[in-house]
Amino acid sequence: MKHSIITISRQFGSGGRSIAKAVADAFQIPYYDKELIKAVAEKTGFDPAYIEEAGEYAKSKSIFSYSLPMNSSIVSGGLSTSDFLWIMQRQVILEIAEKGPCVILGRCADYILKDNKDALHVFVYADKDYRSNRIVRLYGESEKTPEQRLNDKDSRRAINYKHYTGRTWGMPDNYDLCLNSGKIGEEGVIQSIIDICK
Amino acid sequence: MKHSIITISRQFGSGGRSIAKAVADAFQIPYYDKELIKAVAEKTGFDPAYIEEAGEYAKSKSIFSYSLPMNSSIVSGGLSTSDFLWIMQRQVILEIAEKGPCVILGRCADYILKDNKDALHVFVYADKDYRSNRIVRLYGESEKTPEQRLNDKDSRRAINYKHYTGRTWGMPDNYDLCLNSGKIGEEGVIQSIIDICK
Repeated sequence: MKHSIITISRQFGSGGRSIAKAVADAFQIPYYDKELIKAVAEKTGFDPAYIEEAGEYAKSKSIFSYSLPMNSSIVSGGLSTSDFLWIMQRQVILEIAEKGPCVILGRCADYILKDNKDALHVFVYADKDYRSNRIVRLYGESEKTPEQRLNDKDSRRAINYKHYTGRTWGMPDNYDLCLNSGKIGEEGVIQSIIDICK
Repeated sequence: MKHSIITISRQFGSGGRSIAKAVADAFQIPYYDKELIKAVAEKTGFDPAYIEEAGEYAKSKSIFSYSLPMNSSIVSGGLSTSDFLWIMQRQVILEIAEKGPCVILGRCADYILKDNKDALHVFVYADKDYRSNRIVRLYGESEKTPEQRLNDKDSRRAINYKHYTGRTWGMPDNYDLCLNSGKIGEEGVIQSIIDICK
């Protein structure tokens, strides 16, 4: 494989999760999504459900610079639970990437592994109509409109990404490959990623 | 071909032009770059060199809404040469797309053909190091640093794009496929586009 570590970031409803799983299956390599949360839970003793929520969504908009010396940050009492989880999650992602080929979904893995020469960073997106139809078909209706659900989830992801990476979520520069699943189709996206990694 | 019209937009120095040409050659379909300028020159009687410069770079930052009734705009004297060239260029691009399969480089063709069901809109980009090396290798040194040359050209493209389309140049939402040629390689980018179009 030319790129043995594949990170997949995605807009909510774009099918990024199914795509990531299919790519991992095709290469018969580990796929990290809930497994990553489980690993962070084991490392920290936190509840996986809490990690799933807090680990992806920063509550504050202030910029947390993880380049600060950790000890001084801890001593000064400046480390929120989210920030602590971010550090643990980052460690787990770096360890996973050390172990060998894999697919990692979300969790700012594109940023955490930005200097990893073996990594291919993918962003999956689609227009709102496609994603709205898809989330209603997969997850059913809710009290919010599909558009509200997309905006809520994506804006939380964007805030979290900005908070921990300083970068703007969804900008091509962060990724090696951005694919519109609504236009190209899920199968087309899967095949493109596979072909590029081979 | 699943997508018979391919528009390619690109960051300066990313290799988008060679990629566009190679894709057109692979499918044996017309490639429009200078040919498009020639067609606009024939339509307007303007000098091709002037069209090449003015047609891609809007001078003003004000938003030109081409959804305004053309007659009222012309009557009010509000049509600059750039705006006139944009209208002519837009007509030429729509006519070209009507004729059959082709590859069109730049010129906001992604926006002009955004509702064309047969079109695949591609954005090619790469990091600054890759592009700097490439422009010096291809075009030689100049009095400006490579970084200045990249910034100049890209910011003019971005201003022009914003001016005529209201959209932000280089945002994934404008395209179906964004490819980092520095990471994936020119050959890889060409092959991905071909595979998706087939």
